[in-house]
Amino acid sequence: MNKRNLTMLTDFYEITMTNGFLENGKADEIVYFDMFFRRIPDNAGFAIMAGLEQLVEYIRNLSFSKSDIEYLRSKNMFSMEFLKYLENFRFECDIWAIPEGTPIFPNEPIVKVKGPAIQAQFIETMVLLTINHQSLIATKANRIVTAAEGRPVMEFGSRRAQGYDGAVYGARAAYIGGCAGTACTIAERDFGVKALGTMAHSWVQLYDNELEAFRAYAKAYPDSCTFLVDTYNVLKSGVPNAITVFKELEKSGHKGVGVRIDSGDIAYLSKKARKMFDDAGLDYIKIVASNSLDEYIIRDLLIQGAEIDSFGIGERLITSKSDPVFGGVYKLAAVERDGKIIPKIKISENAIKITNPGNKELWRLFDNKTGNAIADVITVAGEVIDDSKPYVIFNPEQTYKKKKVTDFTAKKLLVKVVENGKIVYGLPKIEDIREYTKQQLATIWDEVKRFENPHEYYVDLSKQLWDLKQKLLDDNYI
Amino acid sequence: MNKRNLTMLTDFYEITMTNGFLENGKADEIVYFDMFFRRIPDNAGFAIMAGLEQLVEYIRNLSFSKSDIEYLRSKNMFSMEFLKYLENFRFECDIWAIPEGTPIFPNEPIVKVKGPAIQAQFIETMVLLTINHQSLIATKANRIVTAAEGRPVMEFGSRRAQGYDGAVYGARAAYIGGCAGTACTIAERDFGVKALGTMAHSWVQLYDNELEAFRAYAKAYPDSCTFLVDTYNVLKSGVPNAITVFKELEKSGHKGVGVRIDSGDIAYLSKKARKMFDDAGLDYIKIVASNSLDEYIIRDLLIQGAEIDSFGIGERLITSKSDPVFGGVYKLAAVERDGKIIPKIKISENAIKITNPGNKELWRLFDNKTGNAIADVITVAGEVIDDSKPYVIFNPEQTYKKKKVTDFTAKKLLVKVVENGKIVYGLPKIEDIREYTKQQLATIWDEVKRFENPHEYYVDLSKQLWDLKQKLLDDNYI
Repeated sequence: MNKRNLTMLTDFYEITMTNGFLENGKADEIVYFDMFFRRIPDNAGFAIMAGLEQLVEYIRNLSFSKSDIEYLRSKNMFSMEFLKYLENFRFECDIWAIPEGTPIFPNEPIVKVKGPAIQAQFIETMVLLTINHQSLIATKANRIVTAAEGRPVMEFGSRRAQGYDGAVYGARAAYIGGCAGTACTIAERDFGVKALGTMAHSWVQLYDNELEAFRAYAKAYPDSCTFLVDTYNVLKSGVPNAITVFKELEKSGHKGVGVRIDSGDIAYLSKKARKMFDDAGLDYIKIVASNSLDEYIIRDLLIQGAEIDSFGIGERLITSKSDPVFGGVYKLAAVERDGKIIPKIKISENAIKITNPGNKELWRLFDNKTGNAIADVITVAGEVIDDSKPYVIFNPEQTYKKKKVTDFTAKKLLVKVVENGKIVYGLPKIEDIREYTKQQLATIWDEVKRFENPHEYYVDLSKQLWDLKQKLLDDNYI
Repeated sequence: MNKRNLTMLTDFYEITMTNGFLENGKADEIVYFDMFFRRIPDNAGFAIMAGLEQLVEYIRNLSFSKSDIEYLRSKNMFSMEFLKYLENFRFECDIWAIPEGTPIFPNEPIVKVKGPAIQAQFIETMVLLTINHQSLIATKANRIVTAAEGRPVMEFGSRRAQGYDGAVYGARAAYIGGCAGTACTIAERDFGVKALGTMAHSWVQLYDNELEAFRAYAKAYPDSCTFLVDTYNVLKSGVPNAITVFKELEKSGHKGVGVRIDSGDIAYLSKKARKMFDDAGLDYIKIVASNSLDEYIIRDLLIQGAEIDSFGIGERLITSKSDPVFGGVYKLAAVERDGKIIPKIKISENAIKITNPGNKELWRLFDNKTGNAIADVITVAGEVIDDSKPYVIFNPEQTYKKKKVTDFTAKKLLVKVVENGKIVYGLPKIEDIREYTKQQLATIWDEVKRFENPHEYYVDLSKQLWDLKQKLLDDNYI
């Protein structure tokens, strides 16, 4: 994609607030914000972090153009001082984040921002928009890839995406989540996500008959033919014509690749087609299935013995159709006054909406024997989890539920990405992120990865953080 | 948004096919494609056309850069002739489309493209992506606006949108669908969609107490205060503090605007808050409700007598959460050979997936007495519906269902937008589109606009088109 300055892609209240901070002498107060989410789409057991690279790009390009400032001036709401401030804007925050591809869980700080209130507040909308979108799609893609049990899954959803970036960054996130490639060409050009595709029904229709259409395609691509076989009738026309042309290719020293079935009953059709190809000595021909699939339908197809070698997944992946919102929020956690950190809490009648206060750190405890993740622990920043000794974790809501963890390794999950406005994080290559995702998911218990009613992974608070939270709840009781 | 060339935002198969057309001497064959959709999200009775302006922009910027061509060359799949063709690419198609803001219905051609196969095929992905996304959001927005029964609805969803364009063009489409404004600042700067917003919980938390926070905001914006009143407790803290500050504003010659409630039971809280404001002589203070609302919840809140003056709608609007896909497709309808139009049909076992063949025209018949839309009729292009005489329409699936229409006016809905690659359509201003939407929706029967189980609007085929379709179905029987 062409370079874009997305500075003005922000909720208007970020601007009224930041102008107000300046007006009230609050602009330079150092604050801490956390991004976290409260539930996982599809009631899944884990989500996958994604979008950090685009967040870094946003930060890198953050600046107010003359026309931005002119536009703001024309609103007649903002002080001269504020507009001047924007003109000379230099980003000075620190940002920590969880690397892309890491499994993440509710209530964990996945992005932490520290800096002047005027700046840390301003970036809220883009932090959320960027991470929410890509984490949504990476998470959904992984569910679908898991359902496919090792068969490659291609992301085919551009035409049904919610806007251009929905398609492009969606393809990127799907790849991080485990897809083998995409139909979205620009995602290959810009991110190196393998792009592929062969033909639509229109190719077949443009010819007088299907056989002629397949032959024409084979002429142009003798070694990469995947024929779409459902334009007229899969078993009476599509597959027989494909067999004819695959055989012709063999005779001329070439080899076809596969067929795609995009309608009808995929379980029935794929089994029949498989037999027809095998009987014709074409056991190397792959069958690709598309047509409104998702993890549930794929699971059912495979249970029914569908003979599918790979999947093309469109709208239900690119929009996360069954649950299309990743509900990350960005909440004030602390302010610094006279060098002292004053934790802040957001109360709510709704227990799940009460925030974890203070400047925090996130740890993942790995079992030294199995390598599996045992639990995550949120601590006050500066606390150390000493993994040379047993450590007691407890459920922050049902505190009688305790567990002593021994023989483990504690790792901090938040990585410093931006320091005093400068990028200090080396962005990994997408292939490496995809590989990292796979590795990290291997540390998560299968019980947590179940599609429905998964085991709830432990995300606990340290005693010190829990005490702090209780104190603030007591102090702020109304 | 900065100008972008989205030429390479295309499914990879558009490229393999167009290269294949060239290879097989099909590139210059004149073809007709239709974009249409088969069902309306949320099982609604109508959808709203949107996104045409961005489609026009895409066409205007359509060109292949050196690096695009380099990238394609590196794939080692495409002929030199094809790469040369792209280098010298000049768009030559004609495009017709239904103007933005028009109510649209299943199976109607909403975009029609005529031109060389190589070009008409290439643009498929972007035609669909652009129109699908904005039509989805305009349609959803209108449902929510309708539920609000005249109360203003603001689009507040940027942070939960599916990518940046999801936020920005989503705000645009929501405005076309009837929203009164957006929180998305860049949508105001770039499209003139009124942007607004005041404060988040973080504003309140940054101060030692809520009263101080409200006073600070009032100092900065004495004439545009909408206080967020649910940071601690709406009725015990938020509303009383708001009343105190509104009264202080009155004393200093200013006037507050409203309060926003973002959590808790909105029906209960809004009624209590209304009474507290009225008792304090602040009957002019408006109550804004937000927090995961949609058309169904709004309807229920209003049935329960909630005292809400306007709504801020986030994730459920910007993603069309309850049904996040607009399933427009792009299908070959005809080819021209030796100046003769040869209609094409896509057969399917699934009756709904059988296409309407040929070069077509779309008409809407309006009742001269009521001004209401009676039915739409798809005809073969060139056919004329003579509205000076009675006209018999019939259901294309149950042909015994006939209706004689008299005293009506027939209007063609497709407008020529692009001629031989040049834009020939004056893009309307967004305010005018929004107004046009309102006018056009006023012609649709309330029965069709019902949220659930709406009356199915008639979309019929002319006798000539119906006969043509039957003939092709008979000819292509397998």
